[in-house]
Amino acid sequence: MTTRATVDENPAAPTPAAPRARRGPYRRLPVEQRREQLIAVALELFSRHAPEEVSLDDVAAAAEASRPLVYRYFPGGKQQLYEAALKSAASELISRFVEPSEGSPTERLAHALDRYLSFVHEHAAGYGALLRGGSAVETHRTTAMVDEVRRAAFRSIVQHLEVADPGPRLGLLVRSWIAVVEATALTSLDEGDVGDVESLRDWLVDQFVAMFAVTALHDAQSAAVLRRLLAHYDGVGPGAKLIEGLGGLLLSEM
Amino acid sequence: MTTRATVDENPAAPTPAAPRARRGPYRRLPVEQRREQLIAVALELFSRHAPEEVSLDDVAAAAEASRPLVYRYFPGGKQQLYEAALKSAASELISRFVEPSEGSPTERLAHALDRYLSFVHEHAAGYGALLRGGSAVETHRTTAMVDEVRRAAFRSIVQHLEVADPGPRLGLLVRSWIAVVEATALTSLDEGDVGDVESLRDWLVDQFVAMFAVTALHDAQSAAVLRRLLAHYDGVGPGAKLIEGLGGLLLSEM
Repeated sequence: MTTRATVDENPAAPTPAAPRARRGPYRRLPVEQRREQLIAVALELFSRHAPEEVSLDDVAAAAEASRPLVYRYFPGGKQQLYEAALKSAASELISRFVEPSEGSPTERLAHALDRYLSFVHEHAAGYGALLRGGSAVETHRTTAMVDEVRRAAFRSIVQHLEVADPGPRLGLLVRSWIAVVEATALTSLDEGDVGDVESLRDWLVDQFVAMFAVTALHDAQSAAVLRRLLAHYDGVGPGAKLIEGLGGLLLSEM
Repeated sequence: MTTRATVDENPAAPTPAAPRARRGPYRRLPVEQRREQLIAVALELFSRHAPEEVSLDDVAAAAEASRPLVYRYFPGGKQQLYEAALKSAASELISRFVEPSEGSPTERLAHALDRYLSFVHEHAAGYGALLRGGSAVETHRTTAMVDEVRRAAFRSIVQHLEVADPGPRLGLLVRSWIAVVEATALTSLDEGDVGDVESLRDWLVDQFVAMFAVTALHDAQSAAVLRRLLAHYDGVGPGAKLIEGLGGLLLSEM
C-alpha cells in the first residue's frame, strides 16, 4: 500500500469492531488525511479487481481501519467510495494531459501519451471499469466523469494546435483520435500482445498525423492549421518519417 | 407507426383497462406477431426519446394495446421491453454489415457505411442510448449487445480483407477504426453540423485507408495485406485520390 508511510501509528486508537489481538491496532488519522487514504486504498483495490470483487471489508482491511469508520466517511458505502475513487482517477488522468508548449506538437503528443498509457497500465481494472461502465455502478455519473476526461483531452489538444475556435471537422478529428487512443488502451488491456507503451505511443502519434492529413483533404480549417504546423516543423521527433512521406501529398492537395 | 398495416382490426377484442369509447377498440394479434409489434413500437419510441422519457403506457398507447397486455408479453416491464428493443436494433445493425464480395474493398466499405450511418440517423436516440449506456438500463447486458455489434463489424471487415488470422496490430487497426466510426456517429448526432451521410462516409473511408497505411508501416502482416489489396486495386471509387497519393509512401516503405 503506497499510502502506508503517511499513516501515524497509534496503539491507543479505538477498535470497535474486532478484538485488538486479532486485527492489530487501528490507526488514527486527521479527517482529510483519512479520507484521502481511504480513496487511495480503494483506487488501488479497484485498479486491480473488478468493482464487484471488492468489498467494503477489503477496503477497511487494506486501510487498517474498521468497517464502521469507512461508513462514517462514506455513508453511501461501496458505491460512494467507488465513485470517489473513479473521480480521483479521472483527476489524475486529466493532470497527465498537462504538457508545456515546448518542442514539436508530435513530441508533446508523445509525452502526454507516455503518461496516459502508463496510467492505463498502473490502474488497469479501474481504467477498464471507468471506460466500460462497471456493472456495480450507476452509469450516468461515471459516464459524466469519462466525458470530463475526454473534454480535458480535447481542450488540451486544441490548445497545443493553437486553434481558438475549432470547426466541426477539426473537432471530429480530435474526438475520433481520442476514441482511437481509448480503443488502443482497452485492447492492450484485453490482449497483452499488441505492443509495449513505446510502440503503441509511436503508432498513435502516426495515426494522429495520418488522420489529421486526411481531414485536411476534406476541410479548409484543418488544412490551414496543418499547413501552419508544417511550416514550423523541424523534421525530427515522433512521426517524422510519416510526416516527410505525407508532405508531398499534403502540399500538392492543400 | 410502420407496423400498423399488419394489424388486424377486431372490434370484439377485450378492453380491460379503459372504456372503449375513449381509447378505441384494441386489436387482436397472433402471439409472435404481437410480440414483434410491441418491440417495433418500443424501438420506434426509444429511437426518438431517451429511455427515461418513455413509459409502458406510451408503448401500450402506440401499439393500441392495453398496459396489462404489454405486461403479459414483457413481465419484466419497461426494462425487459427496452432490452428487447435494443436487441432488435443490434440485430438490424449487424444485418447492415452484410456486403457481397464484389467491387473494391473501399467500395464495399462505403456501402456498409451508408447503411450504418442511415441506421444511426433513423434510430438516433436509440443508437445514442445503446452506445452511451442509458441511465435507466442495467449496463452489462446492453454492453454485451454493443460488443456483439462491434465483433460483427470486426468479423465482416476481416473477412472482406481476406485475412484468416489477423495479428494483434491488424486487429488493433480494425478495432480503432470501428471506434472512429462510433465517435463520428455520436458526434454527428450531438452536433448536426459535421456533415451529411455522404461526406462522413467519404471521410471515414479515407480514414480507414490512412490508418491502414500507418499500421502497415509498423506491422509486417498489415503491410502484406495492404500490398495484396493494392496489387488488385483498380484506381477508382472511394478513397482513390488518397490511395494514389499514399502509393509512393507505401511502396517505398513496404
